[in-house]
Amino acid sequence: MSPPIDSRPVILTGDRPTGPLHLGHYAGSLRNRVALQHSHRQYLLLADTQALTDNADDPDRVRRNVLEVAFDYLAVGIDPAETTICLQSALPALAELTLLYLNFVTVGRLERNPTIKTEIQLRGFERDIPAGFLCYPVSQAADITAFKATIVPVGEDQAPLIEQTNEIVRRLNRQVGREILFEAEAMIPAVGRLPGVDGKAKMSKSQGNAIPLSASPDDIREAVLRMYTDPDHLRAADPGKVEGNVVFTYLDAFAEDRDLVEGLKARYRKGGLGDMTVKRHLEDVLQALLAPIRERRARYAGDPAYVLDLLRQGTLKARERTEATVAELRAALGLFILT
Amino acid sequence: MSPPIDSRPVILTGDRPTGPLHLGHYAGSLRNRVALQHSHRQYLLLADTQALTDNADDPDRVRRNVLEVAFDYLAVGIDPAETTICLQSALPALAELTLLYLNFVTVGRLERNPTIKTEIQLRGFERDIPAGFLCYPVSQAADITAFKATIVPVGEDQAPLIEQTNEIVRRLNRQVGREILFEAEAMIPAVGRLPGVDGKAKMSKSQGNAIPLSASPDDIREAVLRMYTDPDHLRAADPGKVEGNVVFTYLDAFAEDRDLVEGLKARYRKGGLGDMTVKRHLEDVLQALLAPIRERRARYAGDPAYVLDLLRQGTLKARERTEATVAELRAALGLFILT
Repeated sequence: MSPPIDSRPVILTGDRPTGPLHLGHYAGSLRNRVALQHSHRQYLLLADTQALTDNADDPDRVRRNVLEVAFDYLAVGIDPAETTICLQSALPALAELTLLYLNFVTVGRLERNPTIKTEIQLRGFERDIPAGFLCYPVSQAADITAFKATIVPVGEDQAPLIEQTNEIVRRLNRQVGREILFEAEAMIPAVGRLPGVDGKAKMSKSQGNAIPLSASPDDIREAVLRMYTDPDHLRAADPGKVEGNVVFTYLDAFAEDRDLVEGLKARYRKGGLGDMTVKRHLEDVLQALLAPIRERRARYAGDPAYVLDLLRQGTLKARERTEATVAELRAALGLFILT
Repeated sequence: MSPPIDSRPVILTGDRPTGPLHLGHYAGSLRNRVALQHSHRQYLLLADTQALTDNADDPDRVRRNVLEVAFDYLAVGIDPAETTICLQSALPALAELTLLYLNFVTVGRLERNPTIKTEIQLRGFERDIPAGFLCYPVSQAADITAFKATIVPVGEDQAPLIEQTNEIVRRLNRQVGREILFEAEAMIPAVGRLPGVDGKAKMSKSQGNAIPLSASPDDIREAVLRMYTDPDHLRAADPGKVEGNVVFTYLDAFAEDRDLVEGLKARYRKGGLGDMTVKRHLEDVLQALLAPIRERRARYAGDPAYVLDLLRQGTLKARERTEATVAELRAALGLFILT
């Protein structure tokens, strides 16, 4: 008897292992992955090859964070029996597909990619753009199609990457004369990007405004205490602003008791609710959320051999799937197959 | 007892399998490879992946020619016991190295490559340059370094590709802090590029001015008869020009009896030697050269399973060598190694 066919829709997602994950990742992606892993066939890619496209000078940083990110995944509840966690650099089929696809995309097209344009500015690359960086949307198309994923959770700013993928898919399907690759859909999270504790748009370790998943109870308390609120809300009695107030943004993102949050908002707007009271509510929510994650994380971090073995198994499984796609595509294109 | 260490210098060379090889290849590269294969450890790469960089619309052409070129190699005397013949697309380590190296080369540097600039013009790509085409010098650097080749026979116009390779080698050695990769030297053939039978600078199948290695005796005769000579040499009695006279260029390239050729040149210059007489000499030389090649080629073409098996064995050997390089380089860079 052959095994039952897994007809769940395929999700590909993952992270560049350049640092341990934080609450921003939890809100924007990790908890969705935990929720989706039963109804979907989910592959989680530790994108160490892609991380090199802007960390070529510091491969050590990437290496050190591969297992850290795997610990984070398991700590938040990613179930390796449901989700395949795999390492990009150990999947040569992804490199092979990237090189193949580069022949079907023009340099001009890559230079027009809005995500790439923005990121080139952010990183100050100007004319010294590493070729690998310019080409990484193609690499991402290779990742997505190698797994035959049709759903790719991405931030809003990354939607053009999915467009690039689908252009390649259509180009190859046209050449092959049938739907050998599938177009993918961006799954954009309902909750927008979580701001840093200082109110800056992006939470990031390098900005020092992030709460890592491994944060200690003291770290959490301290972060909440220095959290950006309404700078004009000087006395508890005054009316305060909820919009742009990070404490409320976090309550919206993490508090389960919606009525409580709406009640707090109403009172804050009206006046008579001090920042400290709201912050104590948020602290309770975050301590309750992060305590079990921190504990599980510590347990996995204490047994790296076990996690390494999970990563090995997941990568083997991913290797089979990605190599099958390359072989199928090569045959369909009429390339030489040396068996 | 461990096997003796092979200390011969390593050569990497090869061809894009886009058509059967011809006399131009024989003069410019094939016979050098036959001569060098004992004193050197030689890898011959059937560069089917690279051939796709400007044949993405017609992969079939590449597939059909893989074995044709292998037949050519064996027919001219490449000895598979001495030379490793291997297939690029079956060596994933080459794709992995290419992606890695792309992080160490800027887009600007690729665009300034003189070989690429010229070829972009030749192919009329202009702004629609496939990204794979722009990146192929990096792919070539991956090929050369994966085999740890120090000698790369190339045409004069391709010397910038070796420069690009050596820049990558120096960049990575600097980062790693030791000489993990070796700089390569271009080996430029003593004989310049063989012109087409019509006197055009380049012999090529698509121009219809090539003599393929499988040419029949009649093909050879006909090609020599229509060969471009000195257009002003109308009567045998007149003095003729040897320079730019394709018949003499071919005699220089292929006749073993140098004294005879010098004698013919002197008589032709002085006047009194007809084109037909010189052409008969050349025809004798070419018939003698190509007869055994044609026979051997027919024998190999009649047994494709045998040739396929040689290619399989060579590719396995090449896979070991190229994967060892990737593993060594990854470890030296401090990347994550999943064993």
